[in-house]
Amino acid sequence: MSVNLSASDPASLHPIAGVRLGATEAAIRKAARKDLTVVLIDEGASVAGVFTQNRFCAAPVQVCREHLASGQEIRALLVNTGNANAGTGDDGLARARASCATLARQLSLSPEQVLPFSTGVIMEPLPLERIEAGLSAAVADAQGGHWARAAEAIMTTDTVPKAFSTQVVIGGARVSVSGIAKGAGMIRPNMATMLGFIATDARVEPAVLKEMVTVVAEASFNRITVDGDTSTNDSFVVIASNRAGHAPITSLDGADARALQAALTGIAQKLAQAIVRDGEGATKFITIQVQQGKTTEECRQVAYAIAHSPLVKTAFFASDPNLGRILAAVGYAGIADLDQTKIDLYLDDVHVATRGGRDPAYREDDGQRVMKQSEITVRVALGRGSAADTVWTCDLSHDYVSINADYRS
Amino acid sequence: MSVNLSASDPASLHPIAGVRLGATEAAIRKAARKDLTVVLIDEGASVAGVFTQNRFCAAPVQVCREHLASGQEIRALLVNTGNANAGTGDDGLARARASCATLARQLSLSPEQVLPFSTGVIMEPLPLERIEAGLSAAVADAQGGHWARAAEAIMTTDTVPKAFSTQVVIGGARVSVSGIAKGAGMIRPNMATMLGFIATDARVEPAVLKEMVTVVAEASFNRITVDGDTSTNDSFVVIASNRAGHAPITSLDGADARALQAALTGIAQKLAQAIVRDGEGATKFITIQVQQGKTTEECRQVAYAIAHSPLVKTAFFASDPNLGRILAAVGYAGIADLDQTKIDLYLDDVHVATRGGRDPAYREDDGQRVMKQSEITVRVALGRGSAADTVWTCDLSHDYVSINADYRS
Repeated sequence: MSVNLSASDPASLHPIAGVRLGATEAAIRKAARKDLTVVLIDEGASVAGVFTQNRFCAAPVQVCREHLASGQEIRALLVNTGNANAGTGDDGLARARASCATLARQLSLSPEQVLPFSTGVIMEPLPLERIEAGLSAAVADAQGGHWARAAEAIMTTDTVPKAFSTQVVIGGARVSVSGIAKGAGMIRPNMATMLGFIATDARVEPAVLKEMVTVVAEASFNRITVDGDTSTNDSFVVIASNRAGHAPITSLDGADARALQAALTGIAQKLAQAIVRDGEGATKFITIQVQQGKTTEECRQVAYAIAHSPLVKTAFFASDPNLGRILAAVGYAGIADLDQTKIDLYLDDVHVATRGGRDPAYREDDGQRVMKQSEITVRVALGRGSAADTVWTCDLSHDYVSINADYRS
Repeated sequence: MSVNLSASDPASLHPIAGVRLGATEAAIRKAARKDLTVVLIDEGASVAGVFTQNRFCAAPVQVCREHLASGQEIRALLVNTGNANAGTGDDGLARARASCATLARQLSLSPEQVLPFSTGVIMEPLPLERIEAGLSAAVADAQGGHWARAAEAIMTTDTVPKAFSTQVVIGGARVSVSGIAKGAGMIRPNMATMLGFIATDARVEPAVLKEMVTVVAEASFNRITVDGDTSTNDSFVVIASNRAGHAPITSLDGADARALQAALTGIAQKLAQAIVRDGEGATKFITIQVQQGKTTEECRQVAYAIAHSPLVKTAFFASDPNLGRILAAVGYAGIADLDQTKIDLYLDDVHVATRGGRDPAYREDDGQRVMKQSEITVRVALGRGSAADTVWTCDLSHDYVSINADYRS
């Protein structure tokens, strides 16, 4: 089940010069499904990433940070599903490093040039031997046209592969941007989604790309939530293969940088929203806009309180305009000096509450009409400033419970 | 459904001299169920309360605060179910005040001597005329032996009435303590549960009782959570009828004060835990102990992160020892300098994780054995200090979704 989301036509996904993707079945957790992916990057690319802020971060996240900090040129990504290699202590770190070393040997690279990514069950030993056994098949499979195939290979509880692509003109040259992501549960990214990868042939200096990735993640993956659980493995990486015909982008300012950042943000938002649309058990896609706050932070805090409330989420699932639950969530969001008599609430175009009470013109039929839709915008005006923020989320259904009660069985 | 909770034998609930309870069917939301309760308090009692910290607090909570602040002696409580009178603006305040005035007239009191309490649906107008029509029947019903009857009358989605009673000897005199509470969803009290009332015939000065109520609430209602949703209506009130034979308690120090506080805390914890045991859809009762923290606050923060994680709660529902989800919640609880390599995790007597990784001796069969129980203790040792805190919660089941998706229909 997913909300207004279908797999992209593979033909719509632009290959990125200098980037090839390959996948194979390594039987990491289950047989007969693609679970091992490699992304091979030609020399001369810029690569930058952001990772989970969970203090219990997984071994591959720790190794990614080390390898990016080493200053060596990143030439390959190695992604496995079925096992998160998190909560695995020193042994988990050793296995993540060993998997990088094995791939590096096959590609004549140093281990620091490989970034590892794992997603799946937590606190189980990574089946290193199966990963190592599958790597040569994954490398042999690598092609520029394999974006859709890789999007499928990194899925876990996802029901739809997530891949988007666009082209923009930068400095007179056509530039392509393609990205894939996975994630459906344990989703409340803090810096990045579970796994998201975007590549472009744009020419960007590594230091500029590093700054740009943070800005892009803030406007996309850091604004979604399914269940409020920040994963141990969230990782978002952008590869710029530096093959396009425009002059190199050397700062965040300027029209070229803005054009590239907008293109990256567009793809990242589509991927992030696709994760919500495919949220575990999701039947509705909810946009939560909080306006008239004193700061962006307090707007986000209120938006997340609404987005995480099980009572609000079950009301959306039931199409029940029990909208007082939204006001209750606004009230406990943690703004100490909030004045309830200044708060307005809208559901799409319907004015539900005025100055903290039911709007005189509000009719439950109008609320009911909006609640029945598969796409709903909740708008809260706090009446205390001019800041605003937006968060995307989904409802909480029986299927969320079923999926997570049965995930390992 | 509830977890190891059954209704108390009415004969076990001690009457409190000077306190009478009455209930009636006023058809506030549904016909043929008790939904209107009064607690009548003889002259000379001390009354103190704590209320929700939700900034969107309900009209009755605002009126309670006003009436308690007025300094007039509180002589009656008026409780309705079926309607929370929250998110109702100025009109809601007027209706709450009018209900107090009507009861005050019948009892020859001033309106400020009545405290109003409402629980039920948010953002619907309080049906004042039905409450006013039912009051004389509720008053006529009032008896000292009606604790069980009142516990039943204040239920909403509760499946079991919650009432407990005890006797202690204070200053050579036998003192009784009896209490009732209601609440099953929208439960993450912040100062108090949805509704909790305790009465004792102990002799306590009002100022001392006021301090004592805060301490008791902190150790009981402020340590439970069902769904993380802090209600708009949480209220907890203690009545001391000052009829017992011991010398008046005039400070929080001393053996008499400690004995009374322990008795009140004991009943409040039983009531608070009963709310969790009867949590919407609950099948398991979970105690979360976090130890070796730097501060009590950070221990509580970690305990609530675990208690609110939908992934942890669904794993308990499924009896699935997918315990990495607990480590993930510890990691995102917001302790910036947490060192994952110092964290140990226990499930009852089973050592699950040592220094952030799976304990070498841990066998999944042992985790499975504990997860199948209806009462489970999760213990996390943070390895960074000597503070500790405990929170009680329940699992997240299909029935939680059903109850909240269907609550109004």
